[in-house]
Amino acid sequence: MFKHSQLESVNAWVAHPAHAAMPLHARIQRAIRQLIVDGALGRGKPLPASRALAKSLGVSRDTIEASYAQLHAEGFIERRVGSGSFVAQMTEFTPGHRLSRRDALLRNRAPKLSKRGAAIFRSGGVCELLSPRPFAHGVPETRTFPLQLWERLERQVRKEFGAQTLLHGDPQGTEPLRRAIADYVNLERGARATADRVLVLTSSQQAISLCANLLLDPGDRIFIEDPAYYGARKAFGAAGLECVPVQVDQQGIIVGQITAQPHRAKAVFLTPSHQFPTGATLALDRRLALIEWATRHQTWIIEDDYDSEFHYAGKPTACVQGLDPHDRTIYIGTFTKSLFPGLRIGYAVLPPPLVKPMTVARTLLDGHTAPMTQLTLARFIEGGHFGAHVRTMRGVYAERLDMLAGLVGTHLSDFVETCVPIGGLQMPCVLTCDIAEHTAVDAARRVGIELLGLSALHHSGDGKAGFLMGFAAYTPLEIEIAVKKLADALRAVMIQ
Amino acid sequence: MFKHSQLESVNAWVAHPAHAAMPLHARIQRAIRQLIVDGALGRGKPLPASRALAKSLGVSRDTIEASYAQLHAEGFIERRVGSGSFVAQMTEFTPGHRLSRRDALLRNRAPKLSKRGAAIFRSGGVCELLSPRPFAHGVPETRTFPLQLWERLERQVRKEFGAQTLLHGDPQGTEPLRRAIADYVNLERGARATADRVLVLTSSQQAISLCANLLLDPGDRIFIEDPAYYGARKAFGAAGLECVPVQVDQQGIIVGQITAQPHRAKAVFLTPSHQFPTGATLALDRRLALIEWATRHQTWIIEDDYDSEFHYAGKPTACVQGLDPHDRTIYIGTFTKSLFPGLRIGYAVLPPPLVKPMTVARTLLDGHTAPMTQLTLARFIEGGHFGAHVRTMRGVYAERLDMLAGLVGTHLSDFVETCVPIGGLQMPCVLTCDIAEHTAVDAARRVGIELLGLSALHHSGDGKAGFLMGFAAYTPLEIEIAVKKLADALRAVMIQ
Repeated sequence: MFKHSQLESVNAWVAHPAHAAMPLHARIQRAIRQLIVDGALGRGKPLPASRALAKSLGVSRDTIEASYAQLHAEGFIERRVGSGSFVAQMTEFTPGHRLSRRDALLRNRAPKLSKRGAAIFRSGGVCELLSPRPFAHGVPETRTFPLQLWERLERQVRKEFGAQTLLHGDPQGTEPLRRAIADYVNLERGARATADRVLVLTSSQQAISLCANLLLDPGDRIFIEDPAYYGARKAFGAAGLECVPVQVDQQGIIVGQITAQPHRAKAVFLTPSHQFPTGATLALDRRLALIEWATRHQTWIIEDDYDSEFHYAGKPTACVQGLDPHDRTIYIGTFTKSLFPGLRIGYAVLPPPLVKPMTVARTLLDGHTAPMTQLTLARFIEGGHFGAHVRTMRGVYAERLDMLAGLVGTHLSDFVETCVPIGGLQMPCVLTCDIAEHTAVDAARRVGIELLGLSALHHSGDGKAGFLMGFAAYTPLEIEIAVKKLADALRAVMIQ
Repeated sequence: MFKHSQLESVNAWVAHPAHAAMPLHARIQRAIRQLIVDGALGRGKPLPASRALAKSLGVSRDTIEASYAQLHAEGFIERRVGSGSFVAQMTEFTPGHRLSRRDALLRNRAPKLSKRGAAIFRSGGVCELLSPRPFAHGVPETRTFPLQLWERLERQVRKEFGAQTLLHGDPQGTEPLRRAIADYVNLERGARATADRVLVLTSSQQAISLCANLLLDPGDRIFIEDPAYYGARKAFGAAGLECVPVQVDQQGIIVGQITAQPHRAKAVFLTPSHQFPTGATLALDRRLALIEWATRHQTWIIEDDYDSEFHYAGKPTACVQGLDPHDRTIYIGTFTKSLFPGLRIGYAVLPPPLVKPMTVARTLLDGHTAPMTQLTLARFIEGGHFGAHVRTMRGVYAERLDMLAGLVGTHLSDFVETCVPIGGLQMPCVLTCDIAEHTAVDAARRVGIELLGLSALHHSGDGKAGFLMGFAAYTPLEIEIAVKKLADALRAVMIQ
């Protein structure tokens, strides 16, 4: 017969509320299996006769028979006619508790990741705040998003497409969304897109990662802006690429540094519309020189059209892709900032010969994007709601930027100088006082304020000390409170 | 003044319905920009005076001034006081049509992918049918999915969480879903999971790809089943791994072949619950031997618990992860088949030391999974609807399998022998006639029937000729019609 403790343990398992959905015989079977797996019932040990166990547990004998039959089918017990059931002689099996000390040692060891895996882990990845606190950057205002309208469009799509939305989607993206994206980037960004050149993805991060793997091999070099968007730099690192920093000035990346050593890298990654983090717009002659370089040397331009929706002074200049008649440019966009981060839709406009390879590569990564979300978004764009939303938010954000710049001037002029950008969702500030960048960032974090240090965005880590202040997701009142809090925090640090 | 053709082209651009949303001055500016980019207006060429162009186009002079100002701001034109506006001398710029012949040559060239990119492209990826035709494999029945219930839960989630669902999600997955998954796999699959060991992903494909990159380096070897799931083999290939095939018999992967050369690979990938494509269930003693191997040599077991929800004869045996007290097993699951492919949610249950590295790696790939879908799914599982749905579909699929096996016996016994599986969504058939596998597959495709050839799933491509017949997504009537059609098609091939 089972020991008292074993019976108790079976009873506890059977009675556990989490197991209520299982039939009784399955619960008993699972409870006994656990005793065996944990080593509480050793190899070769006899099990109680089914009649006796039925009585002890207060269940029918059929129930126990069903449990034993399943244990037998799974190989955990042996049944010998006339002598009953026994825990199987599983010679390969070392039950849980036997190895517990060795086990504990092994568990506490750091896991053996691959070399590339360890490098990826060290990079820290791209972790966004779940509930953005001022002045976390790159977050749009979502509290005013027209959610009811979105839900109405969802209902329309479900009504029209029904169970079709539940099936596998085209890995390149649904045609209506690809068409809507092509129309949008052609109209608003001066791109040369067609629906069959658009690849719908999860995010611009995924587009960057796909480019890195499909166009370059480990050890290959890629030119990147210095300072640069950390997400791109980390993705290139994860793909085993070597980043070659190219300086940025007020006209964007200094293309002359690339054309002076044209063979040094096989591709360039840049944010020409609104350079991250400086906010510079790449000058037209540099755009053209870049296209000339890429055409002549058959290299690639990876254009992240970062924050192009939110220009507050005039229209942004045409994207590089639209100026490039030679199809050397991969254009990357996302709806994370123009709509909302939880949407998970980004895209790439590809040179025609890259469409199939990129789509194939995407199927090996994660298959495709949910058709339901794609169809809803297509309708949102087609119906003019996207354009309207971006226009509304452009007004809201321009006002918030004004507000922030004014408040920083009033309350933080002892500490920083602002570089008011002409677009985007964040404002860079350069420290003009004696406070070290990390001290300022830490002091802010202690009072619930999130700043992104500027110097770490530089390749050598020796850029001007300062920080980025995101302003889009915070109301004027929230901005005012936070600026004053930040001023107090910096003042306190200064005095120390 | 513009030539007539140039004026026409501006007018056409301005009047195009796709551009209706743009202000007039922006439309004119874009139209002129296009003329410059396309080379129709050469460098240094004068532009019409604003007054004259206004008259020709029938718009106000202010409108033209606004267009010219933007063109100037973007660097496309120069304005000289007293002498008017000119196309800028952009020395780096080679307009579109000038290079058109060279351009055409370059465009037709195959793109220069990276070595790994070319290999990925050659693999063909994992492309699922958008509208499944009988007998496409691995597709669940979606036409009876309780979509209204799902929508109701969506509304509940939106009501409760509001704009929070629009923000960035935890890259590890929302806590309610991780908890629901842990409870499910513990209860139904005998796993040892907790919410903090679950990583929510897009699909099992993404989980496989993450494991390949994080645990192994290019050139590293991994044991895989032979025959094997093509999606896994391709993902390992894309990650630069060398696959070491291990034979499969009726008891699953022959673990003795692994323990006989324990150092040959750093990991094993397998589908123990329902081997793809044979349908074998891995015997308990082999599971235990595998755990012993992984523990002793600090290697990894990547367990794809493929099709475990759909066992028709008894309950499936406990998963390897639940038998492994040493945390060497990564458990992979997906809702693609148990719910619907368009959901895009899969998951991994990880050894504790791998949780952070895998989550970080995931942020570099594609950020996170849409919170809205995760919260709805969590509610679907918690409410017992998932369990109920799986139970219902298990009954439906068991009946369809019976139906298919009977019909194949009646109509196709001259051509194939069936291997009726105890679970899963497809039935393997071995060709017993003189028809070559590819001939059978092609003949079927011509009559709208999709079969997956078996021999290509073998490492050496020399497995038994035959095919997989998916049955889950097709009604008994659809199955009957398709089997008869297939019989006719095979008979026609036989006669030729």
